[in-house]
Order: sequence, then C-alpha cells, then structure tokens
Amino acid sequence: MIKTIVIGGPASNKIDEKLAELLKAEHIKIEHKLFPDDESYIRYPVPKLTGTVLLVQSLYPPQDKHFVELLLMIDTAKDLGAEKVIAIVPYLAYSRQDKKFLEGEAISVKTLLKAIESAGADCIITVDLHSEKIVEYSRIPLINTSAVSALIDYVKHEILHGATENVLVLSPDKGGLKRARRAAEILGADFDYIEKFRDRVTGEVRALPRELPVEDRVVIIIDDIISTGGTIALAARSALDRGAKEVYAACTHALLVRGAYEKVRKAGVKKIVATNTIPSPVSEVDVTPGIKEALNKALKFIV
Amino acid sequence: MIKTIVIGGPASNKIDEKLAELLKAEHIKIEHKLFPDDESYIRYPVPKLTGTVLLVQSLYPPQDKHFVELLLMIDTAKDLGAEKVIAIVPYLAYSRQDKKFLEGEAISVKTLLKAIESAGADCIITVDLHSEKIVEYSRIPLINTSAVSALIDYVKHEILHGATENVLVLSPDKGGLKRARRAAEILGADFDYIEKFRDRVTGEVRALPRELPVEDRVVIIIDDIISTGGTIALAARSALDRGAKEVYAACTHALLVRGAYEKVRKAGVKKIVATNTIPSPVSEVDVTPGIKEALNKALKFIV
Repeated sequence: MIKTIVIGGPASNKIDEKLAELLKAEHIKIEHKLFPDDESYIRYPVPKLTGTVLLVQSLYPPQDKHFVELLLMIDTAKDLGAEKVIAIVPYLAYSRQDKKFLEGEAISVKTLLKAIESAGADCIITVDLHSEKIVEYSRIPLINTSAVSALIDYVKHEILHGATENVLVLSPDKGGLKRARRAAEILGADFDYIEKFRDRVTGEVRALPRELPVEDRVVIIIDDIISTGGTIALAARSALDRGAKEVYAACTHALLVRGAYEKVRKAGVKKIVATNTIPSPVSEVDVTPGIKEALNKALKFIV
Repeated sequence: MIKTIVIGGPASNKIDEKLAELLKAEHIKIEHKLFPDDESYIRYPVPKLTGTVLLVQSLYPPQDKHFVELLLMIDTAKDLGAEKVIAIVPYLAYSRQDKKFLEGEAISVKTLLKAIESAGADCIITVDLHSEKIVEYSRIPLINTSAVSALIDYVKHEILHGATENVLVLSPDKGGLKRARRAAEILGADFDYIEKFRDRVTGEVRALPRELPVEDRVVIIIDDIISTGGTIALAARSALDRGAKEVYAACTHALLVRGAYEKVRKAGVKKIVATNTIPSPVSEVDVTPGIKEALNKALKFIV
C-alpha cells in the first residue's frame, strides 16, 4: 500500500476519520468557514502536499455549497503539490438527473463529474450511484461501491435478529429490482417490485408488489435514496392494509426532506435504516469498509 | 454582427431581456425549478441550439447554487449544439479570494473559472472584477467591463444634479484608488483613499482620507462591492464628525448582507447607489450597455 493522507472536507460526516483509522493513514481536517455573504472558505492546515491524497467530501444538502467546496479542495490539493487526488464522494448529488427525461434538459450529474475532473481529480469513489450508467459519463475512473450488503447485514442482525423466514424484499420501482434481488439473496428471501395502481372500488391509489402477496410477510423496502418518502409511505400503508406483518425501510442515502421521516413512520414503517453517506437520525450503517476496498481498486487505476 | 441568441438563467436579474433588446437578438429564458431536496433543474425550452449563444447568469447569493446552474447551462448549451458559448456573469462570486492570503488557502475564483471553462464556455464577460489579476487565471478570454462611468454618471445627474464643486471621491482602501481616480476624473473632483487609525485622545477607531480634508465637502465613497458595509459606515461617520457636508456611497455589486443597508444609512450615508449585477433596493444603474460593448470584443476573440 502506498503512503496516503486522508483529508476531511466540511461535509465528510466523519467518514474521513474512520477511513484514516482503517488505513492507519495520516489524517487532516480542512479549515473551513463561511464569509458574511455565505461564500465558503477552504484552507489546508499544511503548506504542501505530496503523493496521493484522499479527499472525503459528500454532497448532501446544501449540495451546491458542498460541491463548490469539493472543487476548491481538489484544485488546492493539486496546487499544494499532491501528485494524485482521489475524490471520495459518498453521496453524489444530482445523480437522479442522469439522462434527458425531456428534450432540452441538463444531464446534471455529467456536468458535475466534468467539473470534478477538471478541478484535478484523478479518480472518484462513490457509494450506490442512482444508476450504473453514470459511470460512463466520467472520463476518470469512477468506482461505485455498493452498501447493500452492509445495509442488509444490519437489517438481518439488528432488526430481524436472524429471523429471516417469511421476508419479502421490495424495490419501489422496476429500476431498483437488481438491488432488491441482491438484498433478497443475502436474506434468502423473495423479492419483487412495487407498482402503483388505482383501486377500482375505492378509487384510492395503492402501491403493491407486482406479483407476490404481502399477507403475513415481513416486508423490507429497499431503495438507493429516500427523499420525500412519498412512494415508501404509500407502499407501506398498502402492504399493511393487505395484511403484511411488519414493514421496514432500508436505503443508502437518507435525504429525508420535507418531513419524510415522520411521514414514513406515520405510514406504519417500523424502522428506517440508512448509511452514513448523509447524516440523519437513521444513518447507522458505516460505508467506510466498502470505501476502503474500493481504494485498492482506485490505487491500481491511478498509479 | 453575427446572429446570436440571448439566454437568461435563473439569476440573470433581467439583464438578459435588456441585452436582447439592445442587440435586437432572439431571447429565451431557461426553464428552472428546484427539486424537493433543493437540487436545481435546468431545461432549455428548445430542442437544439446553433451558432453563438449568450448565457446570462450572475453569481449573487446563493452563489454556489447559481454557479452550479451556470455550469449546467453551459454544458447543456454545448450538448444542444451551440458552437460557441459566451458566459455573461455580471457578478463573479468568490472574486475576493483571488490570492493566497495565508499558506494553504484556496484561490477560489481560479477554481470557479476553471470549472466554467471546462463546462464549455469559450469566453466570459463580467463587470468590475475585484482585481485585474483575476483575468490571468482564466485560460479563455475573460473580458472585464467597468461600470464606474455609468455609476458616476448616475451620481452626477441623479444625486448631485450637476453640482460637482467641492466633491471628494474616496476609496475605502488603497487597492481601490484607481477606481476612485477614474470616478474623480469624470466629476472633475479630488480623490483619496481611506485609512483606519485609532484616535489617540478618545481611543475610537476612525476612517478618514489619508491626505485630504473632508470639511464642507460632499464625499462620495466608491467601491466594487458593499458586503457588510462596515468600512463604509465607519468612514461615513468619521467624515461627518469632521464636518463633511454630505456622504454618498456608490458601488458596482450591492451584496448588502447582515443588515448592511440599514447600517450604512444609520451612519449618515444619504444615498447608496449600485448596479443591477446583483438585485437590491439600490441597484439602479444598468450594466447592460457596457456588456454590449464587451460583446463586440468577445465576438472578435472567439470567431
């Protein structure tokens, strides 16, 4: 393993500290403040850098501010002499705008990746991208690590306490079916994805598994991001109305905006669990071990 | 003049409309919204672009958000077929972090310029950069237009009503002396810069002209940016205490954060005037004519 230094940005959510500990590497924290007009100030508490530096900065809200800080960190690291910069971005913002849904739209995540590269990054490590296609937008190696097994390990041991019989893993949409399959494999459970439909009798909108019944099942809804929690709340309510025993939600990135936590809990979800790519009251699963593994790959790419 | 289209971003402060009118050019406005998690959404209401496009997006607060939107606008314009993109950025944020004041600091404005270029801009037009040195950081043509004569014309006619006798133009610091000199030339007035010192009798901090007396003078303080207004408030109070007749403040970029407007007015400044690079209650001077002139230069550079 080559000598590296781990540098934590203003939005590292302590993953920098955990990573330095795992790597037994040197660790420094960026000096950071806001000017009165809210411009970010970034300073390295060292006069120069050498070798490969690992910058940790997640892009949770305020995403745009954290993104500008990331660019400043990368560019300045190179200015200070770093030979290689690996940008560790546990949550990559704007990743849901990953294609033109309508004519004339920005593919926002592509623009962000271009800026990260041009600032001087040699490699990017991230966790559970919204879609694998995003990797193709990056002209530098973009390593996407999965937190699914860490999340599901947590669900298995801390929530189900090993009782994995009669579990049904659900993806909120068809696009997430691969993730649900992977989770189900770990649990030895069934999986399906959710479809919305209007009940012909009551007129209510429901969200239920496309094929499998939920009766007497322990339902685990797994997604990459919970933002407003609307779909999950609807799916939970639908499943419980149809006789599901319990509903849990697991996600990698817990944005939980606009009262999502309360909404999902009120819909009957017994527990939500997420990773620490975004700080939140439910961010209990640490993604650092996965990032450490990705680093081995990254170092091969850039050396 | 080649055929151009003017495109207004979410932070154009209507300069796009004024510019299209002056140029008799086609004009469109970017479609824009915020997602629930506060990510920006950008869409061109056209399926493709050709030729040279002029994007107008200022970087007033929230600077980081407006900056990301600018990058999205530029990158998407190129995606849609624009051959050349001229980024018109009336207020360039982060321009006060234009050098390393301390070891290890980011030169933030350099990083921003690099990202704007890498997104696909071929030329940048801006107004009253904090320092001329910033031009050197840009690898694409960066045309810096001055709003000083437009500002001072306004002061001369709308504030002084032509009575320019006994006027003293002051810069809040030595760095702005050139700007004050230019303003003084237009008015046929004296100029000086302000120095802070501690009164040996009262212990109070004062801010007064380095050489010239203020007694019975009409004082005009001119600066590029008014942010918190601290120095201007102090200078105004000092000048009035020493017998100045009236004090006015003129600036290009009126950030006016943390109650600056009230602070400056309370210090006795009779009127503040600024340009429309940033929306504010005092942004009365239009920079569009200067931008139009800069465009002629820009088009020579890029064609």
